[in-house]
Amino acid sequence: MTDLLTSWNDGVAKQAILDFVAKVTTPNAPSFVPPADRIAVFDNDGTLWVEHPLYVQAFFVFDRVRQLAPQHPQWQTQEPFASVLNGDLKAAMAAGESALVELVMATHAGMTTDEFGAIAKTWLATATHPSLKRLYTELVYQPMVELLAYLRANGFKTFIVSGGGVEFMRACAEQIYGVPPEQVIGSSAKTQFEMRDGNPVIMRLPELYFFNDKAGKPAAIQHYIGKRPIAAFGNSDGDLQMLQWTTAGPGETLGLIVRHTDGDREFAYDQTPMGSLKDALVEADKKEWIVVDMQRDWQRIFAFQ
Amino acid sequence: MTDLLTSWNDGVAKQAILDFVAKVTTPNAPSFVPPADRIAVFDNDGTLWVEHPLYVQAFFVFDRVRQLAPQHPQWQTQEPFASVLNGDLKAAMAAGESALVELVMATHAGMTTDEFGAIAKTWLATATHPSLKRLYTELVYQPMVELLAYLRANGFKTFIVSGGGVEFMRACAEQIYGVPPEQVIGSSAKTQFEMRDGNPVIMRLPELYFFNDKAGKPAAIQHYIGKRPIAAFGNSDGDLQMLQWTTAGPGETLGLIVRHTDGDREFAYDQTPMGSLKDALVEADKKEWIVVDMQRDWQRIFAFQ
Repeated sequence: MTDLLTSWNDGVAKQAILDFVAKVTTPNAPSFVPPADRIAVFDNDGTLWVEHPLYVQAFFVFDRVRQLAPQHPQWQTQEPFASVLNGDLKAAMAAGESALVELVMATHAGMTTDEFGAIAKTWLATATHPSLKRLYTELVYQPMVELLAYLRANGFKTFIVSGGGVEFMRACAEQIYGVPPEQVIGSSAKTQFEMRDGNPVIMRLPELYFFNDKAGKPAAIQHYIGKRPIAAFGNSDGDLQMLQWTTAGPGETLGLIVRHTDGDREFAYDQTPMGSLKDALVEADKKEWIVVDMQRDWQRIFAFQ
Repeated sequence: MTDLLTSWNDGVAKQAILDFVAKVTTPNAPSFVPPADRIAVFDNDGTLWVEHPLYVQAFFVFDRVRQLAPQHPQWQTQEPFASVLNGDLKAAMAAGESALVELVMATHAGMTTDEFGAIAKTWLATATHPSLKRLYTELVYQPMVELLAYLRANGFKTFIVSGGGVEFMRACAEQIYGVPPEQVIGSSAKTQFEMRDGNPVIMRLPELYFFNDKAGKPAAIQHYIGKRPIAAFGNSDGDLQMLQWTTAGPGETLGLIVRHTDGDREFAYDQTPMGSLKDALVEADKKEWIVVDMQRDWQRIFAFQ
């Protein structure tokens, strides 16, 4: 079964994963964990797929703004919409995550969840990354896809716990990660059940319901899963509390952080504000979390390499 | 496998269940549904276990009020607490669900989720029903337990979708229904991740986060599961929208309502305000949902009978 991790170079990180899984799956060992409690949680952006130069969902949002602009003439002068329409994405994102949330609310609402899922699926089937020139669904980290499969082959239940929109991620998570919709936890908009021409629909409202980041992640894990995970995987300070919560549990646990160190095959940005990784790296040292150096530990990053 | 439904009398209801399952599981049939989409949702109170004369969780709340009363002297004169302390449960519940929510918030907060789970488990292991004189965990409907197992044996994933508190239900759902914590959807309080003496904890706050009833149920199903179920089971008008949403889906679906018609073996109350069943019954007739008459369709109600 270790053959499942073929894109991992031999080294400390791979060995730590193999050792951890062996410990929790060896029957009669004191470290044994029954399958029902083998819960593993994964951040998405920057942990399972690219997030540079911007989150995949941000590119989706920009395309939605351009598409919906004719119906919203005021966007031509109203920020952050105006900057998006002028192609100045840096200016559009100047206000940080609050600008992104505003853009999401304006472009992801006023339709049913079924309709939104279809729009997201269509976009994901055709949209490509600005510099890597590949479908976003090809820009998933092959070693992490193998790790997801390896954990599941060892009786784990794998969950995504990400700041991304839950319905956006659900539009591709099963296809690219093998994670079904009910195991995707993300940020969400308010929704409302209503009758439309006698048919029940669930409408998306332009209002944030839950933002799944930082201290929100462990609270969401308890809320949605109801169990403390035994393994957590992230890549930024947004994952710090999720890793703390997971690795403070009783028994064997695994915390792992992915560092973006490979400017040739992907992007080297782990010391920049994007996907900021400072506090979690300090804590990783104290708590003996595994730190994956993408350049050193991954034999390949994408399946097509 | 039909032998799993031994507590069901032969009749229309049992046959409808068998027919539905055969249709969605027969390979190559046009009605076939792949296992990943075999989602079944169950209300809890009155559908899977007793809710008469009051919700099980209400009795838990009353015991919590009595236990915490010494620390809250003002409760002696403050409603709805005073009525609980005077043993007048009818007066305590006079304000309806808002009174219950107030009692829940006052008695289920100020502790970690782990601590709350332990308190609920301890209570469920000892508390007994006022008239039936059995542990509440014995007062689960045996035919429904068999139905849960039968559906799972046929590749279904079974979820609870109930107005009860999610952490209260999780304290027993795996034991009594075989439903793991991550498949329990309920009402919830706000929570907060924090550090306590250097250890991460998730604290319960005295504030309602989500009330899972009526139109909230289908919205919650989409939010938590991300798929439309193909089978839904309820017993009151609180389940109407969940049944509408489920049975309006494409392909074969099953909607089923349990009627409390058996005053000898359980309680006959389906025409009373408790667990009110009016609109859903009208709709059941139009939509050809299965209506289970507990007296007629269930050979036994509880496992001990």
